[in-house]
Amino acid sequence: MGFAEFNLKKDLLVRAEHDSDLIQFITGIAEEKGLTAAEFTAIGALKSAKLGFYDQKKHRYHEIIVDSPHEIASCIGNISVKDGKSFVHAHVVLAGEDGTTKAGHLIEGIVFAAEVHLRELEGAKLERKHDEETGLSLWDVK
Amino acid sequence: MGFAEFNLKKDLLVRAEHDSDLIQFITGIAEEKGLTAAEFTAIGALKSAKLGFYDQKKHRYHEIIVDSPHEIASCIGNISVKDGKSFVHAHVVLAGEDGTTKAGHLIEGIVFAAEVHLRELEGAKLERKHDEETGLSLWDVK
Amino acid sequence: MGFAEFNLKKDLLVRAEHDSDLIQFITGIAEEKGLTAAEFTAIGALKSAKLGFYDQKKHRYHEIIVDSPHEIASCIGNISVKDGKSFVHAHVVLAGEDGTTKAGHLIEGIVFAAEVHLRELEGAKLERKHDEETGLSLWDVK
Repeated sequence: MGFAEFNLKKDLLVRAEHDSDLIQFITGIAEEKGLTAAEFTAIGALKSAKLGFYDQKKHRYHEIIVDSPHEIASCIGNISVKDGKSFVHAHVVLAGEDGTTKAGHLIEGIVFAAEVHLRELEGAKLERKHDEETGLSLWDVK
Repeated sequence: MGFAEFNLKKDLLVRAEHDSDLIQFITGIAEEKGLTAAEFTAIGALKSAKLGFYDQKKHRYHEIIVDSPHEIASCIGNISVKDGKSFVHAHVVLAGEDGTTKAGHLIEGIVFAAEVHLRELEGAKLERKHDEETGLSLWDVK
Repeated sequence: MGFAEFNLKKDLLVRAEHDSDLIQFITGIAEEKGLTAAEFTAIGALKSAKLGFYDQKKHRYHEIIVDSPHEIASCIGNISVKDGKSFVHAHVVLAGEDGTTKAGHLIEGIVFAAEVHLRELEGAKLERKHDEETGLSLWDVK
């Protein structure tokens, strides 16, 4: 186990831009505000999305294309630092018109409308480093 | 993009009333405590629910009826002000007895038991205004 | 309705141990840090899991076995006190390689990798007591 302690600085309630990619949009906020540690949730709707599933044996993502409008039933994510830059990691559950779901790692999501609740944290810098065992970039916390 | 900055005031842990509608229940808390900006999550179980899917072309919700007991696998929502009143917006993922899911905008959810974690924010008033492009009432933030 | 008010103390960002059970892992943090009230979210991936669905008539959980790798698309939970000990309650939405989901009460989840955002609260002790109507141990808040 490793963990890092933070204090909550500000809560930002953000209205995402129509037609932006949610990941790039949140990355933009992180860069603009110089965020090095934050956590967020979001609800709303996407026009389309690309999800990822990480193959735990082969150590690579494969993509799941969602090419129709879906509600963002849930989105939970965080901002940390990877290779010196703000890095956004988010997982979503999307819901189609009959309520059925598609979920996974959010690679790209084109915004119809979205409400993002971002919690800016202050404390140590939260950096990602390569983890041999999983092949992922994980938080470097002790 | 538009955003508003807030400070976290209080964290409320709330046990929802059996047989209440979760949306009306949270609206009741918001009215009682005069909340104009808040964010919440909830887990628990519902006896039945009505979910919404917003048609991005026709600009209206259509309803998905869930007429059997389901776990609230996830619920993420917020409180803002619409037409001068506290307004609750929430999305859920519900899980049936075999673990399969139904998800979307929560219109109504009859509580079996639910634990709500509500974060009261202070700062600007968070108001919703009609958005022409989507037909939705979105946060009026700059 | 019943609720208890808390102040946010610290935000902990925790990297869960590979191959730990997520519930036991978070229980361990709670015990180590003496947490009596907290809320958390998590994203990541599990190697396998056991989910629960609570039968609202028979007042017992039945288990749903997930015996293959899944993304943690969403995990929302809290820490309170039950029978004098830190008690973790969490619900999850898991996503398989094609994006389809399984969700419910998290009984056990073997961690491939997981990022946990834990919010330590201070205020009253949050205790669970048996609730006759549902057969569940619910927060004893007034």
